[in-house]
Amino acid sequence: MLRAVTPLTFRRTMIQAQAVLYKQHGPPKDVLFTQNFTIDDDNLAPEQVLVKTIASPVNPSDINQIQGVYPSKPAKTLDYGTDEPAAPCGNEGLFQVLKVGDQVREFQVGDWAIPSQVNFGTWRTHALGKEVDFIKLDKGITVNQGATISVNPPTALLMLTHYVKLEPGKDWFVQNGGTSAVGKYAIQIAKILGFNSISVIRDRHDANGTREALQELGATHVITEKENSEREAGDKIKSLVKSTQGEVKLALNCVGGSSSQGIARKLSPNGLMLTYGGMSMKPVTVPTSLFIFKNITSAGFWVTELLKNNPELKQKTLNQIQQWYKEGSLKEAPSEKLPFTEGEGLELHQLYLKGIEADSGKQLVTYE
Amino acid sequence: MLRAVTPLTFRRTMIQAQAVLYKQHGPPKDVLFTQNFTIDDDNLAPEQVLVKTIASPVNPSDINQIQGVYPSKPAKTLDYGTDEPAAPCGNEGLFQVLKVGDQVREFQVGDWAIPSQVNFGTWRTHALGKEVDFIKLDKGITVNQGATISVNPPTALLMLTHYVKLEPGKDWFVQNGGTSAVGKYAIQIAKILGFNSISVIRDRHDANGTREALQELGATHVITEKENSEREAGDKIKSLVKSTQGEVKLALNCVGGSSSQGIARKLSPNGLMLTYGGMSMKPVTVPTSLFIFKNITSAGFWVTELLKNNPELKQKTLNQIQQWYKEGSLKEAPSEKLPFTEGEGLELHQLYLKGIEADSGKQLVTYE
Repeated sequence: MLRAVTPLTFRRTMIQAQAVLYKQHGPPKDVLFTQNFTIDDDNLAPEQVLVKTIASPVNPSDINQIQGVYPSKPAKTLDYGTDEPAAPCGNEGLFQVLKVGDQVREFQVGDWAIPSQVNFGTWRTHALGKEVDFIKLDKGITVNQGATISVNPPTALLMLTHYVKLEPGKDWFVQNGGTSAVGKYAIQIAKILGFNSISVIRDRHDANGTREALQELGATHVITEKENSEREAGDKIKSLVKSTQGEVKLALNCVGGSSSQGIARKLSPNGLMLTYGGMSMKPVTVPTSLFIFKNITSAGFWVTELLKNNPELKQKTLNQIQQWYKEGSLKEAPSEKLPFTEGEGLELHQLYLKGIEADSGKQLVTYE
Repeated sequence: MLRAVTPLTFRRTMIQAQAVLYKQHGPPKDVLFTQNFTIDDDNLAPEQVLVKTIASPVNPSDINQIQGVYPSKPAKTLDYGTDEPAAPCGNEGLFQVLKVGDQVREFQVGDWAIPSQVNFGTWRTHALGKEVDFIKLDKGITVNQGATISVNPPTALLMLTHYVKLEPGKDWFVQNGGTSAVGKYAIQIAKILGFNSISVIRDRHDANGTREALQELGATHVITEKENSEREAGDKIKSLVKSTQGEVKLALNCVGGSSSQGIARKLSPNGLMLTYGGMSMKPVTVPTSLFIFKNITSAGFWVTELLKNNPELKQKTLNQIQQWYKEGSLKEAPSEKLPFTEGEGLELHQLYLKGIEADSGKQLVTYE
């Protein structure tokens, strides 16, 4: 992948690149560093593609990878010119093609691209790969949409469509974490596809404001966690579901604990709960009787694993999301921008650390 | 089903029958009663089969049905000659054919039979049905085997064979409740089929005695609940599983709570946990990471629902179990016998109440 990379030299024609790396796992502030390396852009191999980074976000899984608590990990390598093997950070990001080798057919200079697989390393200024390492994006979408298209929107779309057939206009899904990024994508995509949604939100003093905001996005019904644990909300949902002559066939869980129990109880017989996160840090809890007498199934969803060996599905999913973005029917989660200017302000790894330490909001490092 | 039944009269030629019934749900001691009724055995319809009961057990689900907390319920009827509609008790039991109508082909006088469906009512001296209401049993098995063949042995056999393909000599399953009736059937059936087993037993002062007893039945590996929650047991199991070049593809859960979490952790990637009971009264608990990163699935098993509309599977399962009983390769759970003698001792419903209130052991009411 990085065969044309050579350690830092002073040849003027080479690209001076930087990447955020770590040599061992640990707290990001202790282990991340910025590595300078060069890319010989005058001598690309025939199948190589050289890209520069436009923007890359900080995702929770990126942080977990650095900490060593995430099961999918980049290999450590000497390719960046470090004295010991080191691994690159970042799994999501938007690139622009700077140069292509003679045999490259799919990409032209100026094209937008994202990594085709995780663990490619997106917290860096430039990257050199082969055609197969990249997926082309449509330039009709925004930088923020492109840089955050690989994880959350496919998670929402695939959970809603890949496991259970929801009948438009009739069937329902229920989710907790209704205000999370995936939760908001799921609400919007369900609205586009005609599925009814029940979204559970945290108990907060402005629950009604949140409820209205989600309804504006397309939510059918919004309840608080307190309501999620009470009988009345269940009765109300039963009557809503009856009114559409549908079923609650799917539950999406990113919280766990009593919240997962609450949404599992909303499922119709033979329903499926997919767990894709565990924000409460508590295990997934489902009453025994739901398994035995309602034939509920509880399973997991991991977009990385599902798409790893299924490039057709990944491409189809990305195409659909780009189309909705261009039509304006889907709105992406907003990002807080952290602009990187070489030689000014923070070093590259310090800028990502700032993103890691931010209190709230998706953090997006943008490159000039 | 009971068209030839008429209220109690003094015609000498009729069969004087008794059944345990309830008019409303509640604690068994408050709601059960013995109803006398007659069966006109001289005027069987051409398709009818008249049976007498040989033995019928008290199962936990029978009690839950009476209490009104079980989802599958017998219909209330006036067929037994009660003043208000009443429902029959008991779902499992062994009958002997007393008489058959002219068009009955499958049954002869003297044959053994069990009800083909639940909710038929087995806590009674006699029953009148059609051919389709009964399944013939082989008389080469014992009364206790025949009277307890419908629930626990098929539960164990079907959980081990109907969902996941375990490879003989290589693959493993893990279960809690290792000393339960189903647990012991599962250990023996796994041994017959060549599957390796890990059985979790309660922490008790004679754990080693229990361990040896289960190993004598064919258990591969037995651990206590305390060990089920500790890392060492997991490491030991990993090395055992590695030694057979297999995987732990299946977990059978009848406990819930932390015990279910312990056995779920023993599963190999892509494993399935089937829940068929909840003895701890705590919900099923599975760590979030097992769902997302190990792709574990958690589902339920209810033999009633699985076999309700699948008579071929039921027949095939019963045939297999009878064959193993006859060969002597499968031992059934022993029963405490409660003999019923009409006109002497306890009334019929009092005898079943005695069985309901027994501290331990499967209770089997036997008829003279």
